[in-house]
Amino acid sequence: MSKRHILTFETYDDWDTGPMEAAYTVYNLPHGAPLDSLPQEAFAQVEAFAFRGHDHLGADVMDAFPKLGMIANYGVGYDTIDVAHATSKGIRVRNTPDVLTEDVADLAVGMLIAGSRGMIGASDWIRSGNWAANGAYGLQRKVPGSSVGIVGLGRIGRAGAERLVPFGCDIHYYARSAKDTPGWTHHDDIVGLARTVQTLVVTVSGGPETLGIVGADAIAALGPDGFLVNASRGTTVDEGALLDALENGGLGRAALDVFLNEPDIDPRFLKLDNVLLSPHQSSGTVETRKVMGQLQRDNLAAYFAGTELLTPVN
Amino acid sequence: MSKRHILTFETYDDWDTGPMEAAYTVYNLPHGAPLDSLPQEAFAQVEAFAFRGHDHLGADVMDAFPKLGMIANYGVGYDTIDVAHATSKGIRVRNTPDVLTEDVADLAVGMLIAGSRGMIGASDWIRSGNWAANGAYGLQRKVPGSSVGIVGLGRIGRAGAERLVPFGCDIHYYARSAKDTPGWTHHDDIVGLARTVQTLVVTVSGGPETLGIVGADAIAALGPDGFLVNASRGTTVDEGALLDALENGGLGRAALDVFLNEPDIDPRFLKLDNVLLSPHQSSGTVETRKVMGQLQRDNLAAYFAGTELLTPVN
Repeated sequence: MSKRHILTFETYDDWDTGPMEAAYTVYNLPHGAPLDSLPQEAFAQVEAFAFRGHDHLGADVMDAFPKLGMIANYGVGYDTIDVAHATSKGIRVRNTPDVLTEDVADLAVGMLIAGSRGMIGASDWIRSGNWAANGAYGLQRKVPGSSVGIVGLGRIGRAGAERLVPFGCDIHYYARSAKDTPGWTHHDDIVGLARTVQTLVVTVSGGPETLGIVGADAIAALGPDGFLVNASRGTTVDEGALLDALENGGLGRAALDVFLNEPDIDPRFLKLDNVLLSPHQSSGTVETRKVMGQLQRDNLAAYFAGTELLTPVN
Repeated sequence: MSKRHILTFETYDDWDTGPMEAAYTVYNLPHGAPLDSLPQEAFAQVEAFAFRGHDHLGADVMDAFPKLGMIANYGVGYDTIDVAHATSKGIRVRNTPDVLTEDVADLAVGMLIAGSRGMIGASDWIRSGNWAANGAYGLQRKVPGSSVGIVGLGRIGRAGAERLVPFGCDIHYYARSAKDTPGWTHHDDIVGLARTVQTLVVTVSGGPETLGIVGADAIAALGPDGFLVNASRGTTVDEGALLDALENGGLGRAALDVFLNEPDIDPRFLKLDNVLLSPHQSSGTVETRKVMGQLQRDNLAAYFAGTELLTPVN
């Protein structure tokens, strides 16, 4: 039986390309490459996408492949994919939830600790010779603070909150409705949540519904002693307001794994010493990426086998 | 009533010197200053030390103050103090336990996450422009790994272990005898522990009893994929063996808050990119330092009032 044809987007690790090329005829569209760089026969033959990446996947791309029936996204967030258009064309979209929950929650808590305790500056303090020459590093802030507010108590937010409990953090959360929790405090208003807590941890999904959900008013409510951690998407926080507040002391600190226009982030971030920067590596561990790749391939295999798809988005 | 006389060592914050000077006549010995830089009358008058610091406090210093009856240490670790000599002279030694447990455990866990996830290198990756120019940061390691071994299950070790449970870490520990735990695995041999786990977190007290307790054999047992976190004292790990192993790939990674010869640490550390360096800031938060200073002063006040001392060492 001849192999089916798939199109992969961006770059995969060898442990992913090997199995994909063994199973399929694979075309690849590197980051930033135009669609017409693909060979002509690809458009007629490709039946599924192994999608990953930062670029928008819209109607124009989907419609160029008449046999396209399935988009297997590598990642839990699919905000770059026009799911509504896919649905209207009968194209099934699948993602890789759950398998990266731990890594994202781990990094969010790591950023909270590292930011509170000034760990990046502490490393610089030694490596620049300041410790030996000028003595003790400046005092930092205790981790628990008064309380932590989780914006979005989905899988990742809940895993983050669970990790923070033994640190003595009092857990508050924003969600549209109260959830079943071990005594955590529900807020239906992000500004009110930001006024209550010292640290806000954003874990809500991206997409149009959460665009700028943490706005200038919430950042102001967090205040000069406040700390914002974002492990969700750059779109969820009003980035201009965030930069203004970090620059003028309206917000104390931030720790960010996500930005608008990644990886060409706003150069204003690079001038600030009260922000911990992380290059969207929330699921970036060898262990998790291998599992994500496997789940993406399992979704492809299930589609071509005509069996039940594993992790449906639409 | 005239004020009693105390001698403070090294530098204190304003929130400590204010109350001490209000209550006592205070002499100060800065870091590295010779004893004979003190005014002559100090030797006859000083009845108590407010001690902190890295320098050894031995018989020579204690014996220079005939009225010395009390040493209030700022910190939980008193390995720089010759407690045996103090005891033989009837000098009471007090420390500041408990109040810094959370901060040390927080930092140890923060170093574990930051080291596993390569957070310092991740920050450098952005700030150097590499993310925008060269794409994704290299994949790192998942936090839980297979299991974590705590060396020393005292207050700090237990607090660290409790924090790691929700990260999915399987907890093992070294202690002379098994302790009451929620199912954690006891080891009476550090090399065996290091062979079992992927990450070793050292939280045992300093002093002669734990000198080099994590030796070359334990580091070798941890191995090329292993990770060593030290939040105790530089003396507890064989630093030469550690440096050799980090340089030659015998050990995967380390995250260190403590070193021999602080703050003039071995320059070999500065050449390594597989070690996270932290300038002994385990209790270095504004919140905790204020509480530590208060407890130190409470110990002094209790001594001069002739009441029960709060946190006895001897």
